[in-house]
Amino acid sequence: MSGEEQVLERIERVRRRKPRVREELVTLAHGAGGKATRTLIEAVFLEAFSNPLLAPLADGAVADGLAFTTDSYVVTPLFFPGGDIGDLAVNGTVNDLAMCGARPSYLSAAFVLEEGFPVEDLRRVTASMARAARDAGVPIVTGDTKVVQRGKADGCYITTAGVGTVDPAVRLRASAARPGDAVIVSGPIGEHGVTVMLARGELDIEADLASDTAPLAGLVACLLDACRQGEVRCLRDPTRGGVATVLNEIAGASEAAVVLDEDAVPVRPAVRGACELLGIDPLYVACEGRMIAVVDPGAAPAALDALRAHPLGAGAAVIGRIAQDPPGLVLLRTSFGGTRIVDVLVGDPLPRIC
Amino acid sequence: MSGEEQVLERIERVRRRKPRVREELVTLAHGAGGKATRTLIEAVFLEAFSNPLLAPLADGAVADGLAFTTDSYVVTPLFFPGGDIGDLAVNGTVNDLAMCGARPSYLSAAFVLEEGFPVEDLRRVTASMARAARDAGVPIVTGDTKVVQRGKADGCYITTAGVGTVDPAVRLRASAARPGDAVIVSGPIGEHGVTVMLARGELDIEADLASDTAPLAGLVACLLDACRQGEVRCLRDPTRGGVATVLNEIAGASEAAVVLDEDAVPVRPAVRGACELLGIDPLYVACEGRMIAVVDPGAAPAALDALRAHPLGAGAAVIGRIAQDPPGLVLLRTSFGGTRIVDVLVGDPLPRIC
Repeated sequence: MSGEEQVLERIERVRRRKPRVREELVTLAHGAGGKATRTLIEAVFLEAFSNPLLAPLADGAVADGLAFTTDSYVVTPLFFPGGDIGDLAVNGTVNDLAMCGARPSYLSAAFVLEEGFPVEDLRRVTASMARAARDAGVPIVTGDTKVVQRGKADGCYITTAGVGTVDPAVRLRASAARPGDAVIVSGPIGEHGVTVMLARGELDIEADLASDTAPLAGLVACLLDACRQGEVRCLRDPTRGGVATVLNEIAGASEAAVVLDEDAVPVRPAVRGACELLGIDPLYVACEGRMIAVVDPGAAPAALDALRAHPLGAGAAVIGRIAQDPPGLVLLRTSFGGTRIVDVLVGDPLPRIC
Repeated sequence: MSGEEQVLERIERVRRRKPRVREELVTLAHGAGGKATRTLIEAVFLEAFSNPLLAPLADGAVADGLAFTTDSYVVTPLFFPGGDIGDLAVNGTVNDLAMCGARPSYLSAAFVLEEGFPVEDLRRVTASMARAARDAGVPIVTGDTKVVQRGKADGCYITTAGVGTVDPAVRLRASAARPGDAVIVSGPIGEHGVTVMLARGELDIEADLASDTAPLAGLVACLLDACRQGEVRCLRDPTRGGVATVLNEIAGASEAAVVLDEDAVPVRPAVRGACELLGIDPLYVACEGRMIAVVDPGAAPAALDALRAHPLGAGAAVIGRIAQDPPGLVLLRTSFGGTRIVDVLVGDPLPRIC
């Protein structure tokens, strides 16, 4: 075996190594959506719950024409420009169903409330959930409420789950991207994360920003209608960990490269400015009303037109392509003509963003 | 109008009055499953989310042959004799589906972890969930993990949701009880609540007790098989608030009375003893592996036989009857020949029991 072959083999061994959680205690990084989260999920949850439906670790599980998904919301603060934990919890679960290609049918909502939480705030949150559910056309049909003592929560945590129906002809999978495919984002990125960060008031930045939280099921329906069967390879909403993390998942699952064009990625100036001050890359900042679509190159123009014709996709843009090499990596062609690897972060500079 | 009629009319007016939350802040009582919980749910959640599927406030929602349910688990301590938060979270949601007459198909699991929670404890919890899911024959197919800072949770909270299929011929409703029906409990009551309470170590009581946490879908299938269509009127699992709360819900929804025979209610001596020391009535203590079945009087013997033939129903007993009057009330014929009203508690002497 040549030296190069030995190196490649060693890399392959590392890649295939069983994920291990090295920490003895859970850290905030384990909840950040990056590498630590992935390791925790693979080494603990997937190890314990092992089954073929869970294994793809997609936004939801799909079987027998049914999609099923859940998310807990622990965002702080509870209220921020453009939304609150309530519409976030509804839109987030609606979007996870939409990313599976499902039409959302029903939602559940379970609350963990901290003793002393103002009833008036709970009314605001539930009113906002009701509005979001109405906008998404999906009823909240079942729920639960628990109360814990002061100091055992942070006002209000919400867990929503959602059930939807999937047309069996629609098969969206992170593993379906093929070299040549177009990578599309439905609008400017990073607004949710930056807005929540600024709403914490820890930084003295004023910016005219609002969360992008929105239900994407309608937008997905328009996109799927505009393309032929199989032309939309996969959809993901870039929440925790942002666009960079989602694209790494697609690159990994499809054993292909994602080559991004930095100039093509839509970022509003206020987001770009805040990110520069915060020292973070917008590619890692959560969106809550945007999606990434990987689409057959021939279908890309029709897909883009369909997205742009919808109010939630007005800012859609092709931001890159799928390439053969190097498999599993996301590359960024920078404005200066260079190329750099866009890796997954271990932690996240923005905890409790959703 | 006679004086009596005036009084009755006034009672009716109070009964029909729109529920109002008088407190400005959420209290532990709002999470206890009793009157305060009911008021919060009706005045806030039902008011906001109003829709016909949510309105019955059953253990889950049923539509189009699908049952859907969710529950958050905040039990403390996380580990107790006979179980832990993990199997509790699986069995609880399996049981809510079973109480709708559904065959559980899929579960989701969402975790809110506190920074610093031992990874080893998370492994124990997930292993226990996996075992419980396997025992119940239902896979955990999707999930989520969030991590919050120290002091913003209590180790680990779990929210499970479940989807199941319902035979359209099976229509179990709390409103379906009719005078003459038998009220059956599937086994001795109060073991879960007392076990958790004692596991907190705040009381210096030693008792040979374990939680009754168990999946009831199999037991329900045996019961439904043994009865003809419509003979099983309704099923409920007496968790938070215990048997007393569940029976009040049935009495209210069916506009009938439940008349209990105190001597017939199975309570293990250790539970009775601990309850006496704690100053609580076993009728209000949570079970996590028992159910209440209201059954046509003609079907009661077959129902009882079917339950007793199953390991989880070996201690099944008829504990009372449905009567016409007084509608909406639960009465207890005591061992001493007296009769007293068994009302719903405002709070709960046992917070965070599930």
